[in-house]
Amino acid sequence: MSDVLPSWRPGPTRDAVLAFLEAAPDIAPQDRLACFDNDGTLWCEKPNYVQLEFLLRALATHVAAEPHLKEKPEFAALLGGDTAAMQELGLARIAMALTGLFDGMRAEDFGAQVRDFMAGASHPTLDRPLRTTVYQPMLELVAALRALDFTVTVVTGGGTEFVRALSHDLYDVPPEHVVGTLIEYDYAKGADGPVLTRSTRLLGDPNEGPAKVVHIQTQLGRRPVFAAGNTGGDREMLEWAHGAAGPSLAVLIDHDDPDREFRYEGQGVTTADVESITEVGRREGWIVVSMAKDWETVFVPADG
Amino acid sequence: MSDVLPSWRPGPTRDAVLAFLEAAPDIAPQDRLACFDNDGTLWCEKPNYVQLEFLLRALATHVAAEPHLKEKPEFAALLGGDTAAMQELGLARIAMALTGLFDGMRAEDFGAQVRDFMAGASHPTLDRPLRTTVYQPMLELVAALRALDFTVTVVTGGGTEFVRALSHDLYDVPPEHVVGTLIEYDYAKGADGPVLTRSTRLLGDPNEGPAKVVHIQTQLGRRPVFAAGNTGGDREMLEWAHGAAGPSLAVLIDHDDPDREFRYEGQGVTTADVESITEVGRREGWIVVSMAKDWETVFVPADG
Repeated sequence: MSDVLPSWRPGPTRDAVLAFLEAAPDIAPQDRLACFDNDGTLWCEKPNYVQLEFLLRALATHVAAEPHLKEKPEFAALLGGDTAAMQELGLARIAMALTGLFDGMRAEDFGAQVRDFMAGASHPTLDRPLRTTVYQPMLELVAALRALDFTVTVVTGGGTEFVRALSHDLYDVPPEHVVGTLIEYDYAKGADGPVLTRSTRLLGDPNEGPAKVVHIQTQLGRRPVFAAGNTGGDREMLEWAHGAAGPSLAVLIDHDDPDREFRYEGQGVTTADVESITEVGRREGWIVVSMAKDWETVFVPADG
Repeated sequence: MSDVLPSWRPGPTRDAVLAFLEAAPDIAPQDRLACFDNDGTLWCEKPNYVQLEFLLRALATHVAAEPHLKEKPEFAALLGGDTAAMQELGLARIAMALTGLFDGMRAEDFGAQVRDFMAGASHPTLDRPLRTTVYQPMLELVAALRALDFTVTVVTGGGTEFVRALSHDLYDVPPEHVVGTLIEYDYAKGADGPVLTRSTRLLGDPNEGPAKVVHIQTQLGRRPVFAAGNTGGDREMLEWAHGAAGPSLAVLIDHDDPDREFRYEGQGVTTADVESITEVGRREGWIVVSMAKDWETVFVPADG
């Protein structure tokens, strides 16, 4: 078993992960469900979410074709880098305005646009293609769980269809195993049969915090015994997995590696919650992974 | 290939199904998604939906403990067999009233109740346990598709959690591959961590007709190339699968076997749609399966 995580350095963190893998035979096969957050857990989320880079690229294309879009308050704030205006408008309203750029699009066309973006995009500071900012140690953990007949799922705050467009290539995860923020579709009967197009309405809540627990049940239908995350938005999901009967594991990635990736300041601290998420994790008995100390390698090969 | 469907009689129907199976290598592995309706397609739905039998049993238990429930108009109509009152109230309102019997219940407790019911229930006229009113030929088709790396899913008008509680035992289908009518959950933080309980609210629309196509996309994330159904509520799903690019198959079960199962009268005919669903299927080029002529065996073994 000790050779399944070659990019994890020997020590108590790797030992704890291996102990869970060794306990897998004690878990009923039907209960072997693993839920991974995506941004900051499977791939890099700094300095910007990958999805935001995609949306800004799409906005630039739309603005070039329809300059009047620059006047829309949400887009004016974004394009002008006007942080105060963005805060006043709120992230939810800006996100929905960006989502509106794809109103009426078919799912397959949206997916093709996402894949086209990822094929060419580079990370702004890490000097590697965006598609290679996936964490090698986490791919090894995904593979080890899969070898033990776990169903591996991605439970993301990002757009479900955005991540689905990439999850097969990046993680070998099929679309039904991606649980994220869901856009509703509109059905119409066309001349050649049904036509499904993207709406601008959400189905359920944005997939963060308690909503992750709710959507794991509604979309996957069972409680996970493994979860991995990295921010306060993963807290409830980590608690849900960690509290399952029998062997369970909650893994929290601590971004403490400014040399190879990023160091997050005040991770998870909000005005309502004076405890950081790493402090919560240590207190709750989760496995807190130090990116700097526990990982020999951070990213997949840059030519991958 | 011809030995994979032993309960299907030789003839044009079986030949058409086999031709699709033989074409599977021409379908990209990621596109191999098969969607089966449940009631009347995978198991018997007459004289009553299995889920209705379960709900009536639950209602009897609740009424015994709380007799005042008999006064509730939806329950009074049901218990009295008052068809006129039921029609006036409407199926949706009655269904939601019955769903309310499980308000506040945890998912695992609901699932246990469903399995407990199925373990002991018998079909009212077929003289066999309810759990053995599954169609043997359809199980063989499920197995044949799976052997070709299809992801096999159940897309049901019934309650998602009701079918999920049984889908592993009956069809070897995991819960995330069941798409049905979804009840929302309420999240609460308890002393021992998150607690999820059933609400009485639906997430999305009841899973019939166009909603099946929408929910296949939102929950499974891709277009099927195979679908099987048996009523007008499956029409859009069958059209969606049949219209996929490349090899595709739409299978419609025609209940024309009063000796071994049931003969449906005027199947799929509504006031808005003078064409029956079998007529639609023949016109559209779907494979219409005659239960009486095409199946050598109808049900799984009664001791199964």
